[in-house]
Amino acid sequence: MDNAAPLGKDLLGIKELKRDDILQILETASAFKEVLERDIKKVPTLRGKTMVNLFFEPSTRTRMSFELAGKRLSMDVINVSIQLSSVVKGETLLDTIRTMEAYGADIVVIRHSSSGVPHLLAGNVNASVINAGDGFNEHPTQALLDLFTIRRMKGRLEGLEVAIVGDIAHSRVARSNIYAMGKLGMNIRLVGPPTLIPAGIETLPGVKVFHRMEDGLAGADVVMQLRVQKERQDSWFFPTISEYAKLYILNSKRLALAKDDAIVMHPGPINRGIEISSDVADGTRSMILDQVANGLAVRMAVLYLLSGARA
Amino acid sequence: MDNAAPLGKDLLGIKELKRDDILQILETASAFKEVLERDIKKVPTLRGKTMVNLFFEPSTRTRMSFELAGKRLSMDVINVSIQLSSVVKGETLLDTIRTMEAYGADIVVIRHSSSGVPHLLAGNVNASVINAGDGFNEHPTQALLDLFTIRRMKGRLEGLEVAIVGDIAHSRVARSNIYAMGKLGMNIRLVGPPTLIPAGIETLPGVKVFHRMEDGLAGADVVMQLRVQKERQDSWFFPTISEYAKLYILNSKRLALAKDDAIVMHPGPINRGIEISSDVADGTRSMILDQVANGLAVRMAVLYLLSGARA
Amino acid sequence: MDNAAPLGKDLLGIKELKRDDILQILETASAFKEVLERDIKKVPTLRGKTMVNLFFEPSTRTRMSFELAGKRLSMDVINVSIQLSSVVKGETLLDTIRTMEAYGADIVVIRHSSSGVPHLLAGNVNASVINAGDGFNEHPTQALLDLFTIRRMKGRLEGLEVAIVGDIAHSRVARSNIYAMGKLGMNIRLVGPPTLIPAGIETLPGVKVFHRMEDGLAGADVVMQLRVQKERQDSWFFPTISEYAKLYILNSKRLALAKDDAIVMHPGPINRGIEISSDVADGTRSMILDQVANGLAVRMAVLYLLSGARA
Repeated sequence: MDNAAPLGKDLLGIKELKRDDILQILETASAFKEVLERDIKKVPTLRGKTMVNLFFEPSTRTRMSFELAGKRLSMDVINVSIQLSSVVKGETLLDTIRTMEAYGADIVVIRHSSSGVPHLLAGNVNASVINAGDGFNEHPTQALLDLFTIRRMKGRLEGLEVAIVGDIAHSRVARSNIYAMGKLGMNIRLVGPPTLIPAGIETLPGVKVFHRMEDGLAGADVVMQLRVQKERQDSWFFPTISEYAKLYILNSKRLALAKDDAIVMHPGPINRGIEISSDVADGTRSMILDQVANGLAVRMAVLYLLSGARA
Repeated sequence: MDNAAPLGKDLLGIKELKRDDILQILETASAFKEVLERDIKKVPTLRGKTMVNLFFEPSTRTRMSFELAGKRLSMDVINVSIQLSSVVKGETLLDTIRTMEAYGADIVVIRHSSSGVPHLLAGNVNASVINAGDGFNEHPTQALLDLFTIRRMKGRLEGLEVAIVGDIAHSRVARSNIYAMGKLGMNIRLVGPPTLIPAGIETLPGVKVFHRMEDGLAGADVVMQLRVQKERQDSWFFPTISEYAKLYILNSKRLALAKDDAIVMHPGPINRGIEISSDVADGTRSMILDQVANGLAVRMAVLYLLSGARA
Repeated sequence: MDNAAPLGKDLLGIKELKRDDILQILETASAFKEVLERDIKKVPTLRGKTMVNLFFEPSTRTRMSFELAGKRLSMDVINVSIQLSSVVKGETLLDTIRTMEAYGADIVVIRHSSSGVPHLLAGNVNASVINAGDGFNEHPTQALLDLFTIRRMKGRLEGLEVAIVGDIAHSRVARSNIYAMGKLGMNIRLVGPPTLIPAGIETLPGVKVFHRMEDGLAGADVVMQLRVQKERQDSWFFPTISEYAKLYILNSKRLALAKDDAIVMHPGPINRGIEISSDVADGTRSMILDQVANGLAVRMAVLYLLSGARA
């Protein structure tokens, strides 16, 4: 898995990207952001190219975002949703993606509940593979759209103080952001109970760990709340959700501890009253819907750049 | 929910439309009907615009009709089917549609099992909302395609005698048609057992109630049979389906009571032998497949007019 | 069901085709194969035409292949997946497809678990019907892509020795290939245990039956392994899968019995270690991914030719 080349064939994780790769994607996304503000939000750039959305985990939002990004570049988009039960062996996964490639798929967007599946597949096909979330590992386009959103609002990235609050240990969104922000010289405060923060993570570039929200938020430029995975509660490392909410919900009182112009982020979908209060979610400093909109521009940029690398 | 403007941002129900709004949609649909009779049934009118089909109830036919209407106007169409279980709070529904809007959806077509959901959502987004059926409330595009079909066959609407037969109380198709036909000066005969007809409905403009089918059909220009919702039978207000069928099925003997040139309508899918006999369903006076085909033209008209209102 | 005309309205089975029909499809597919090797794999040939993929059995691969074939011809493609439970009567099936036709579907691709359903429907609509697999009867586009693949590799069809190995009795792929290869003067060796080979099948043109794999493979030009339907094992006519695999798996030792330049085929998805060993499946003589890729060209050809017959 050599991804050293400037945005090579695949986008598997932020870990494999260089600082300049990230900046190139953000610049390209700015150009596509302008396309999305036009009346006709569509360009013929990738006409005749095919994207397959290969989702082994259900996802409405990420699938829709990639589908729309592809369609706005005039790609043909095929959605394939596969129940885990029908794919039991690594060999079969390889056969599945090789079949997609045989159909002429130029880009395969893959989401899977097991970490590393996109990397395994990418090494075995000529099609470009984009990781749309793999287990607890990475969700690189989410981190890229988060950076894009922050830069648009703050005008810069380096030196910003970003608090990421919640279940850091089981969040691929957090992991991808930690890698990305470290490479860009941002200061990362991971905030959560000890059971939800991986031991030793403070050795990564730019990372500090906080257990009290008040400490983590003081003077922050950005507060990024993670989603509480209520559906995984049986295996959760915290007594109850209401107790968690009491300690880690972002409400307006707590937000007041951050900088006056601090922005609020969340990868969605939000749990109102659990990790974020409604007044903050709907407030003027909330970037939640901007993140969604920017996700389209960022994914168009990734599709465009990977296609260029293949041409 | 002020929808007084001539075909404003949304199409939520016939109740909110004025007579002229309805006529404008029917005129526009006539123009699109010609497009659909061409060899290449497609126009670039709404290229670069995005429609999201957001269905909280399963539906093959209505979803397909909107999807095709959008594609024939060159829209990008995204289908989203959401199980009710995953959306439990009104707030979450709002977040869902705001997310669709953030993706750049110009038009959101929504079907939901609860009455009033499209209205609630429409008031909170800038995207156009089209009600594709909400609970027992309305299904406005069905009524519009019914009117379009009647006018094409009869050359007029005002003064026609229309019998609507079946479970009036639980039919959003019936409700939308009753509103529409009342505004257009049509005479509406609601036919069904007392338990399936809402008390007091005869106070609405143009409405008369009949319990014997023979009385309701005598001299009718149009006979519209409603679908028996067999899947809701446990909560049904009638002893058995076979007893219902004996009293209210439309067969050729009963159809002979209507005018000689009376037409037969049904919103589909039909239950042969329950609310309609096969010889009538497949007979020359049956408009059932014409209704399906006209639905495309009517939905294209609605998409076009709402887009114009937004431009 | 009169399909005597040269590639008439429908493609229901190979049985109904003449030798020249088959050759015409293969020639046309060669032209589309060139399109698929271009950078922009798309032609405007069927712009404004509509294909409905009507699948009563789940299928990812065949659905995707038809969907992509349609999109590369610039068709509008609608996917409809219907659970068998919701369609219980033949009448209702007819109503379903008549509704598709009323929406303006030019071509309906249908897969159904009951033999003969596509034929029944085709006789009752003006839209073209393509059989994408009906029960144990036929899967004609699979046989056509198999022939296309063989001819590309061997330069001819007539006189070739083809071994088809596995559950012949319950394979629509085998049936369609037996009809096709018989019409084209190929020599067909059906290989499998007696319980999985229909009695009397050796009376068909070109067919010989073998029970020992070694006998069936000796001197073959083509070895086509059928998929073991593990999901149907409860009704299977063989003691255990592992015993079956021991007798009928294609491994490199057995492949050595065939001609030196023999090719290996499989309709997919493959069961590694059951009907085919991994070294053979991934070897240089394996055509499995070529079959997938060729399937697109063949299905584009079928869509194109049927549309021409309708124009």
